[in-house]
Amino acid sequence: MKNAYEQLTEHFQKIGDLQHVYAITSWDEAAMMPSGGGEARGKALATLGVMIHELTVASEIGDWLDNCSNLDLDEWQAANLREIRREYDSATCLPSTLVRASSLAASNCEQAWRSGRENNDWDAMRPLLEEVVARARESAEVRSEKTGLSKYDSLLETFEPGMRSDRIDELFAGLKNFLPDFAEAVIAEQNKRETLSLGNHFPIDKQRELGLKVMKVLGFDFDHGRLDVSHHPFCGGVKEDVRITTRYTTKNFFESLMAVIHETGHAMYEQGRPEGWDGQPVGVARSMGVHESQSLMMEMQAGRSEEFIGFLAPLIREVFGVGNDDPAWSAQNLHQQYVRVENGLIRVDADEVTYPLHVILRYEIEKALIEGEIEVAHVPDIWDEKMMSYLKRDTRGDYKDGCLQDVHWHAGLFGYFPTYTLGAMMAAQQFAAAKSEMPDLLEQFGRGDVSGLLGWVRRNIHERASLYTVSDLMTQATGEDLNDEFFVNHLKARYLPS
Amino acid sequence: MKNAYEQLTEHFQKIGDLQHVYAITSWDEAAMMPSGGGEARGKALATLGVMIHELTVASEIGDWLDNCSNLDLDEWQAANLREIRREYDSATCLPSTLVRASSLAASNCEQAWRSGRENNDWDAMRPLLEEVVARARESAEVRSEKTGLSKYDSLLETFEPGMRSDRIDELFAGLKNFLPDFAEAVIAEQNKRETLSLGNHFPIDKQRELGLKVMKVLGFDFDHGRLDVSHHPFCGGVKEDVRITTRYTTKNFFESLMAVIHETGHAMYEQGRPEGWDGQPVGVARSMGVHESQSLMMEMQAGRSEEFIGFLAPLIREVFGVGNDDPAWSAQNLHQQYVRVENGLIRVDADEVTYPLHVILRYEIEKALIEGEIEVAHVPDIWDEKMMSYLKRDTRGDYKDGCLQDVHWHAGLFGYFPTYTLGAMMAAQQFAAAKSEMPDLLEQFGRGDVSGLLGWVRRNIHERASLYTVSDLMTQATGEDLNDEFFVNHLKARYLPS
Repeated sequence: MKNAYEQLTEHFQKIGDLQHVYAITSWDEAAMMPSGGGEARGKALATLGVMIHELTVASEIGDWLDNCSNLDLDEWQAANLREIRREYDSATCLPSTLVRASSLAASNCEQAWRSGRENNDWDAMRPLLEEVVARARESAEVRSEKTGLSKYDSLLETFEPGMRSDRIDELFAGLKNFLPDFAEAVIAEQNKRETLSLGNHFPIDKQRELGLKVMKVLGFDFDHGRLDVSHHPFCGGVKEDVRITTRYTTKNFFESLMAVIHETGHAMYEQGRPEGWDGQPVGVARSMGVHESQSLMMEMQAGRSEEFIGFLAPLIREVFGVGNDDPAWSAQNLHQQYVRVENGLIRVDADEVTYPLHVILRYEIEKALIEGEIEVAHVPDIWDEKMMSYLKRDTRGDYKDGCLQDVHWHAGLFGYFPTYTLGAMMAAQQFAAAKSEMPDLLEQFGRGDVSGLLGWVRRNIHERASLYTVSDLMTQATGEDLNDEFFVNHLKARYLPS
Repeated sequence: MKNAYEQLTEHFQKIGDLQHVYAITSWDEAAMMPSGGGEARGKALATLGVMIHELTVASEIGDWLDNCSNLDLDEWQAANLREIRREYDSATCLPSTLVRASSLAASNCEQAWRSGRENNDWDAMRPLLEEVVARARESAEVRSEKTGLSKYDSLLETFEPGMRSDRIDELFAGLKNFLPDFAEAVIAEQNKRETLSLGNHFPIDKQRELGLKVMKVLGFDFDHGRLDVSHHPFCGGVKEDVRITTRYTTKNFFESLMAVIHETGHAMYEQGRPEGWDGQPVGVARSMGVHESQSLMMEMQAGRSEEFIGFLAPLIREVFGVGNDDPAWSAQNLHQQYVRVENGLIRVDADEVTYPLHVILRYEIEKALIEGEIEVAHVPDIWDEKMMSYLKRDTRGDYKDGCLQDVHWHAGLFGYFPTYTLGAMMAAQQFAAAKSEMPDLLEQFGRGDVSGLLGWVRRNIHERASLYTVSDLMTQATGEDLNDEFFVNHLKARYLPS
């Protein structure tokens, strides 16, 4: 006779199996599917999604949870129970009518957004987004009542457990103050140096070859994963079979290569999660912020370091068949390309200095929206104002490159944006800790050796999965809770070394 | 309030959605998955398979079926009800303990077979195959009791509804008598002519380019499907997104190209099934034999005709960059390559003349096995004897190229083999009917125009899906029930024209 804990784990293994199939089929949709398959695929995934949801809110889970109280569980099992409880409470707290209405509103809005953004058509998008926001506010209200959190925090909790907007306000305040002037200063400094052009024709097969080589250097396990192409780069699939994607333009190789390094960082986290926890909530990635910290660890901390670019330069020249004495292809010039700072309009194209400003702008708007302090109709004006203030760019009338540029809100995601910058802060703090353990970490990168860093994140982050809270995870790994100083120091050291 | 028929169709739509996800994930397993993902994938698909099975045997189906009796249904709905009844009876007639035991035995045997075949290790495979056969006999006995069919026929019914072994015996008797001497005569005749070698290096990207071009000529809709690579060529995916595969060797391009044409034939059937029957049993392909008739229609009837090869020859020369006056690359020499006959050991490598002999041998053995007339231990000797008699090849001690060469029995498939040759007969008969409607059909192929043939199979086969029984389908399409004469006449006309 199985005890309640064993029954729970068996049930979640089943959910995990269905999530496996869901993940692979979703990857296929983005990376393989011909467009004519879209409608049937949408229906099929919706049906599977409903079945997964039904299993996640099954009332037996509640009974089993109640019957676990006097079982003798080890640390991991107890943490698993805590995470199951969290997931179950989160999944069951909303009435199914609201779940359906939210999903429908988001699906309508997201589909319209694809052309709405293209056509700069705010008037068409506004009512659809209003419907999405209305449903998100309802969800936030229900969640807030059940959890005692503020409305916005109750949504934030679903992406970044334990994080609160008061704390984010503190963490972002320093950045908001520091970054605009800092970015100006960096841009002025960079304008003094010439950056040589590398031309504008880079065959896609060569770019792919380069990406695969760099993935290998970073430790990606090709027996448990693949690299493919999709419209937006992402990391999908399952722990045992991680599917990352990039996208290519023949005009430059920078973007595809850094996308590969970024997604490889996500992939390393997935491939490094502990064995034996199939489908169990304790065995999955801790939070969106922690996930982003792993991609930014590879892309920003390691990938764009002078030392790693120094190692990459001969590899890049070899792949594209360029001589070693061409100054445009020198390590120094390549590094300049990779640390270029610009006050741009588009978040996904932003460098690591200005990126947080894009995030803070969105965070402030979405928090005010969910708390009911502003309405959807006000968003474009507030956007314009904040863009001018933080990034000195005029977006008036340019919805396409303004408040319509990201899919998140249109897809019903509120509380997600801050995790990008929380991840950047975590990465800087983790990297500083790893470097204080291994003072020659950067020199290792210069030899193409990432194993020291990989060992550190494996031990301190990946293998711990969801064993600890985010706060405990950071403290165990770095000796203190999240602190924005490390990120600021990282930016200063890289972009304006004294 | 939905009526019972509407409830049934809704239920089967849900099953169809899960089958969609299952099909795409299975395709991924064969065409995309890195080997390290296999174990987790196996578990995930097994879980999804069980969920699909549970939905297929749900007792509500029985209730709804009972409540449909006084509904006013049109021809397609009535046929759908008939097919639902057939599927439901077939799925529910076996006790679940037996389903599980069969699945386990087949899974063990199939996995061992991969190395067992490689190592020519009959002693290792025998006990595993005995277990599979024991379970298949049990299933046949239960099915036989419920259906009143013979044991073997009750298994055959699951692949080729309405077909009986008495009828197969009749159909195969003529072939068994005719083919061995005919093959001898063809081989002797072919040996009089020299066939020129085309060399042995054909780049894979060129072969793929050629395959894609020919798929386009055959009418494959790339907005609803793809071509990829797998260990064994197959046609998978779903109607709205058909995934076909081939395999490449640089040594020749014949095999990959004909595999592409063959699988494209299967794909055209899938892409041509009627709209609006998502997940409904009446909307799927009629039988394995009919499916094979569509692949062989493209591969054998059209693809290897002198006229079509005449059209292909300049295309092939262009893709491989060969001059138009090289005699090895002439239409005539290419055609000779494509109609070469040989008494080989391996079914999947066999030409269309000797293929039925491979099938008849397997059919006779599997029928005797299921009816309990022989035991697994006898299989190698009987195999050797029949190979010598039908194909004049000695297989003694060569299990690898003998009774271990095919996965079917090891995977628990009994009653499947005859459908290959039933399909060849159906294809010849359908082609003769199409040609009598369009006397210039072959000339059309010479211009690369397959639209006449495609229109005929669309109207007469594809769009009818499972509306009729196989027998009625053939009669409606060709004016008579299945008749082996058309296939024999086709072989005579192509291989020994007087």
